[in-house]
Amino acid sequence: MLEILKLAVYKANMLLPAHQLVTFTWGNVSGIDREAMLYVIKPSGVPYEELTPEDMVVMDLQGRKVEGRLNPSSDAPTHMELYNRFPNVGGIVHTHSRWATIWAQAGRAIPPYGTTHADYIYGPVPVTRSLTEVEVERAYELETGRVIATHFEQNGLDPKAVPCVLVRNHGPFAWGKDALEAVHNAVVLEEVAMMAWHTEALPLTQPREDMPDYLKEKHYQRKHGPNAYYGQK
Amino acid sequence: MLEILKLAVYKANMLLPAHQLVTFTWGNVSGIDREAMLYVIKPSGVPYEELTPEDMVVMDLQGRKVEGRLNPSSDAPTHMELYNRFPNVGGIVHTHSRWATIWAQAGRAIPPYGTTHADYIYGPVPVTRSLTEVEVERAYELETGRVIATHFEQNGLDPKAVPCVLVRNHGPFAWGKDALEAVHNAVVLEEVAMMAWHTEALPLTQPREDMPDYLKEKHYQRKHGPNAYYGQK
Amino acid sequence: MLEILKLAVYKANMLLPAHQLVTFTWGNVSGIDREAMLYVIKPSGVPYEELTPEDMVVMDLQGRKVEGRLNPSSDAPTHMELYNRFPNVGGIVHTHSRWATIWAQAGRAIPPYGTTHADYIYGPVPVTRSLTEVEVERAYELETGRVIATHFEQNGLDPKAVPCVLVRNHGPFAWGKDALEAVHNAVVLEEVAMMAWHTEALPLTQPREDMPDYLKEKHYQRKHGPNAYYGQK
Amino acid sequence: MLEILKLAVYKANMLLPAHQLVTFTWGNVSGIDREAMLYVIKPSGVPYEELTPEDMVVMDLQGRKVEGRLNPSSDAPTHMELYNRFPNVGGIVHTHSRWATIWAQAGRAIPPYGTTHADYIYGPVPVTRSLTEVEVERAYELETGRVIATHFEQNGLDPKAVPCVLVRNHGPFAWGKDALEAVHNAVVLEEVAMMAWHTEALPLTQPREDMPDYLKEKHYQRKHGPNAYYGQK
Repeated sequence: MLEILKLAVYKANMLLPAHQLVTFTWGNVSGIDREAMLYVIKPSGVPYEELTPEDMVVMDLQGRKVEGRLNPSSDAPTHMELYNRFPNVGGIVHTHSRWATIWAQAGRAIPPYGTTHADYIYGPVPVTRSLTEVEVERAYELETGRVIATHFEQNGLDPKAVPCVLVRNHGPFAWGKDALEAVHNAVVLEEVAMMAWHTEALPLTQPREDMPDYLKEKHYQRKHGPNAYYGQK
Repeated sequence: MLEILKLAVYKANMLLPAHQLVTFTWGNVSGIDREAMLYVIKPSGVPYEELTPEDMVVMDLQGRKVEGRLNPSSDAPTHMELYNRFPNVGGIVHTHSRWATIWAQAGRAIPPYGTTHADYIYGPVPVTRSLTEVEVERAYELETGRVIATHFEQNGLDPKAVPCVLVRNHGPFAWGKDALEAVHNAVVLEEVAMMAWHTEALPLTQPREDMPDYLKEKHYQRKHGPNAYYGQK
Repeated sequence: MLEILKLAVYKANMLLPAHQLVTFTWGNVSGIDREAMLYVIKPSGVPYEELTPEDMVVMDLQGRKVEGRLNPSSDAPTHMELYNRFPNVGGIVHTHSRWATIWAQAGRAIPPYGTTHADYIYGPVPVTRSLTEVEVERAYELETGRVIATHFEQNGLDPKAVPCVLVRNHGPFAWGKDALEAVHNAVVLEEVAMMAWHTEALPLTQPREDMPDYLKEKHYQRKHGPNAYYGQK
Repeated sequence: MLEILKLAVYKANMLLPAHQLVTFTWGNVSGIDREAMLYVIKPSGVPYEELTPEDMVVMDLQGRKVEGRLNPSSDAPTHMELYNRFPNVGGIVHTHSRWATIWAQAGRAIPPYGTTHADYIYGPVPVTRSLTEVEVERAYELETGRVIATHFEQNGLDPKAVPCVLVRNHGPFAWGKDALEAVHNAVVLEEVAMMAWHTEALPLTQPREDMPDYLKEKHYQRKHGPNAYYGQK
């Protein structure tokens, strides 16, 4: 079942090592079929070089495995929660990519220092609070999704305009309209995180001027707004 | 038309991923035919692995597309303005390459800390002011070119001696006598930016001695002066 | 003799350049056959591209060469001492990998800043004291192993839960149930060391919250505890 | 003439891009035949991918070209001066490799922070003074060699024990018994420079203990001393 989606999710997973976002098996991509109410995700702990489209696991939105001979990624409940809470998201990716993870470990949101950031992410990349001990004990991976979604709701963030987040002391999640766009956004996040780190750590000779809001607006809108004019029709 | 120039501009564009200056489609190279008063530029948002010489777009210096089935790079008006204002420039490149972008995001000119810099760039790599809200709203990409050209004029900088610039909060532009030399200078800028960043951030045990002016002069002149003796005749 | 182990140790050694943990010949992996009381180790100073499984050297646990036409790695006595003191260790690796060596040179243990660390290493990566002049003169490599093992004993550290260490002013050793797992842990250590370095050096806008203990516990146990649920059965 | 040496020098030059020590043509290797009193060096400004063994230029120790249709590297007089002043040196390399150049630009010697450094370089990697304006004007490249050699003489440094140097505001030179060993030492220098940079920039929780002298001695001697026991006989 869902063979086309399985192939797309498989291909999106294989982009993680191609873009150097993963070491060993530290990452997973999923994609959802909103009509079937089922999502497809990488199996747990399988090396990328051995992965096949048939290894992909089909899950429902209540946490049950629907098809697949392997266990799903142990992070599957986080994906499920985000699909349940973010109805416009079609694909999700989690990695421990170096630069995004560094900001997550430092517990800091990534400020929008330039147009590379503004081209894709509207405002800072948010960082969640730590999970409480009760949350970690109860249902760790599911609660991780809850903490992310609640952070977005409480701060009035739109998952379409802010397609990624840092889970404190852990690492990034990114998403998009499908699995491919989710990985695309994870690559963007990694570039943005690397450049923001070095922007901050560069000694300044005078106070840094933050990027003006109208520039953020312009760059986001020229790529994603109703009158976007980047790319081909 | 301009098939030879299209091929040269295509090849120069393909050097961007080869030199790891671009992620996805974040870069564009153009080259001009000064007699025809036409320039050739990469189309907008086309992945490098799918690009062909035939995809190159021919533009005139008033901003009209002369040939090509695809939209030109959304940065085309910046290229146009620079061709109009810098009559000796034959090729232009824009990227979001990591290290140059970091300096642009920090809003800092890159000081000439060593002979690698002095071999190619006479004095600091300048950084422009931010665009005003009016400029961003009016004609963002064209105004970007204006801000660059005006910065050079007001500061008495020669685009031949200083073949690159940082646009504040955005990223670098570089240029040269043709598209190939423009990319060459973009690679130099990235190296110089990386090394200058780490030169500044290294803890000093005593005040750093700036490179003496006579050394800057010597290195620039031995490569580019009337009695240059680097390379083959 | 021990042809299967030789092949496994050879393959584990070849993973060092594949994972970019070594420059030239700066690294060595060994594996032990606990029944035969013999271990197999890379020969000294042989470039990886020339290495063959037959080059592996068989050593006993008193420091005598049992088989092999080449000299064993000059670090062999360190491996021997660790096999003698850590009875559950089946494979050992030593490298001068960049990020782990940086922490060793700074003389600092690596704090557990995130779940990437906690997934594999229980608590900080320890750093040993310097060897004394007497130790260096007497039997340098053997004493290095002694300093490591004594550090673990005196600090109540379990080599299974903490599968790596930094030797001050020198570099990392890592181990595991076999040579392959030892290299796996060396790769993890390098990632963790790189991210911890940048976590610390990132300017903070508010005091960093350390990773809560219950999160460390959770991540270690979900991969390595009695009820581990990561991966496939 | 000197066809075997030309081939060796050619191969050593080709190791520079293989070890990522050069961008474009920013590097050159030479090797000397001490009996013939002639050295062979890379031609100036020729891209590595176009280089052939026949392109190598033969020079005498008074600065005259003896054979070759191309101009020698513009740094040839520096090589010549070092061959004249350091009678045991058989090969020399100059690059603008990133990490060594960063230290040169900062005007700082590289302290020996660990055994990787001590395995190859006895004591700090020295940094020269700046050349004076007179020196730069008179015979820039030759004077660069003089400043290096004089620095070694005045500070009692042995070019065999300290096989590399940083020229202030410029970049590194390294050498060895032949062209291949010179490149080997240039690679070591780059690793050591990268790790020393990050050792210094890591925030310390307590004062760093410098590597004890007896450890430096031990590591240098076990590889290079009369009783060296690293590697194969």
